Amino acid sequence: MRVAVIGAGSWGTTVAAIASQNGPTTLWARRGDVAAEVNEQHTNETYLPEAPLPAELRATAELDEAVHDADVVVMAVPSHGFRDVLAEAAPHIRPWVPVVSLSKGLEQGSGKRMSQVVNDLLPEHPAGVLTGPNLAKEIMAGQPAASVVAMADDRIADGLQPVFAAPAFRVYTNLDIVGCEVAGALKNVMAIAAGMAFGMGFGDNTKATLMTRGLAELTRLGVAMGGDPLTFSGLAGMGDLVATCMSSHSRNHRVGLELGRGRSVEEIVSEMNMVAEGVKTSRVVCELARSLGVEMPIAEQVDAVCHQGVSAQDALLALMTRPSRSEIHGIRP
Amino acid sequence: MRVAVIGAGSWGTTVAAIASQNGPTTLWARRGDVAAEVNEQHTNETYLPEAPLPAELRATAELDEAVHDADVVVMAVPSHGFRDVLAEAAPHIRPWVPVVSLSKGLEQGSGKRMSQVVNDLLPEHPAGVLTGPNLAKEIMAGQPAASVVAMADDRIADGLQPVFAAPAFRVYTNLDIVGCEVAGALKNVMAIAAGMAFGMGFGDNTKATLMTRGLAELTRLGVAMGGDPLTFSGLAGMGDLVATCMSSHSRNHRVGLELGRGRSVEEIVSEMNMVAEGVKTSRVVCELARSLGVEMPIAEQVDAVCHQGVSAQDALLALMTRPSRSEIHGIRP
Repeated sequence: MRVAVIGAGSWGTTVAAIASQNGPTTLWARRGDVAAEVNEQHTNETYLPEAPLPAELRATAELDEAVHDADVVVMAVPSHGFRDVLAEAAPHIRPWVPVVSLSKGLEQGSGKRMSQVVNDLLPEHPAGVLTGPNLAKEIMAGQPAASVVAMADDRIADGLQPVFAAPAFRVYTNLDIVGCEVAGALKNVMAIAAGMAFGMGFGDNTKATLMTRGLAELTRLGVAMGGDPLTFSGLAGMGDLVATCMSSHSRNHRVGLELGRGRSVEEIVSEMNMVAEGVKTSRVVCELARSLGVEMPIAEQVDAVCHQGVSAQDALLALMTRPSRSEIHGIRP
Repeated sequence: MRVAVIGAGSWGTTVAAIASQNGPTTLWARRGDVAAEVNEQHTNETYLPEAPLPAELRATAELDEAVHDADVVVMAVPSHGFRDVLAEAAPHIRPWVPVVSLSKGLEQGSGKRMSQVVNDLLPEHPAGVLTGPNLAKEIMAGQPAASVVAMADDRIADGLQPVFAAPAFRVYTNLDIVGCEVAGALKNVMAIAAGMAFGMGFGDNTKATLMTRGLAELTRLGVAMGGDPLTFSGLAGMGDLVATCMSSHSRNHRVGLELGRGRSVEEIVSEMNMVAEGVKTSRVVCELARSLGVEMPIAEQVDAVCHQGVSAQDALLALMTRPSRSEIHGIRP
């Protein structure tokens, strides 16, 4: 099975490195110098510093060269560039070849999931995702971890499992593409909320409570969109959320932490010199939730802090003074 | 509504302090000096140091005095003393009064859940649990948190909600007593596993993966015992597990950490001068799982490390070399 990985960021490069141990793998990098470095130095210092790459991994800056003989196409470009890159690659992809997305995000404007974008452009190709608690650096270091490959057809999911597996990287299967994509795209909003609690000086208990009730919100929304609630308690949901909320490397968690300390989102974002995905996503999530009639009080408060000048203190107070009811309200489909 | 809380440990005292703000509450302490201290100094330095208690909270060392006019009996004694204390109190409890357990554990020998022990002794009384991510110190400090009260009858659960609620302590309801009790009793085994990974030098990713797959195991067992899988993604399951695995105060997590560093369980336990619940529970869980035909690979490895002299390294290797399959295998009831 020949694999093409499109996008040489930290996670794309990591997945390509794994796949290259299981079969011939080509990594597409937008920049020619990055492709040359992968081929000649077996490193990608810009996006994955201090990680030696396998000598078997080939790279190219030509999209057609990367995909023309691939039996699996793995899309590792960010959500905002996903459609354009795939449209450019599409004419060169062989029939029936499955397309697996690694991108966690929704398309701006359309609000579409990445597998829906694949369906738009390559309707006759099986589309799915590989997702889970996957901090690239830890996986490259060979630390034990697991992920889930979601495809609508379980025979294809089973066939892809060995492509992505490594001795310390277990790959489970799941048939629920919607749930897996929604969980991955939206967890960053909850990472901001958990970070806020930490920044306000609260402990593990408050953080665990916010993560759990945050996941319940994501689950409600995911179920309303057609997902399976059990997906959200798996690697794509709980796993990814917990890893993000525990990691000091998470940009979203750090933004939340600074918000909790009373700083403004403008200050924080200008200082970090990059936008944390969850800041933008909080607005999209609230719009989606309203259109589907789903209550998402935590996401609403993150949106209020990020976009309406509400303080973290007031946001938390608003959360605590709501009436409580059944824990699984709105979750059972 | 008059409340009796039986047991003046850290969590019993905390719940009694909360309840005393909602109605007349009596705390039973086994030791007369502790009861006197609560009444006179409004503190319980032995079990809940540095936490001023409300002046309204009354305490007694007489069981009959505590329960004779109670409309709710809250059992806060550890699982090994639960049956004896309740048997002693039973003749003094008024008819129909609900009994709510705070104890996280199974009865040794019988393997019964605490609500089953209540059913044995007081069959005509509604039995349930209050459970969730509840580190007593953080709740007493007024940090925001949430919990779940599980009763088979939702009218009784709704009625009990305001008894346990506080401005920063939200109480949700759940009808799944089995799931809530199994999750609380067994999560310590997974806290040991997560601690082991940390002790071996692995990061947030590995830890999040173990917590997620650990919860999947608990869910499989809980479902086989009659629980609802969604309970396990709520406060009693994920919430409690995440709080325990993040907290540096958790004894079980600490035991795991030292095991991961290569020390023996005997060394660790003798040094801590107390037994971490999860060490014992890992054996009970594996017996339960075998009798119900449920696969629990992580619990088995914790048991192997704690009771069969297997090293943490070998245990992890055994986990990573199993075949992977569907993520929700065995979870859907």
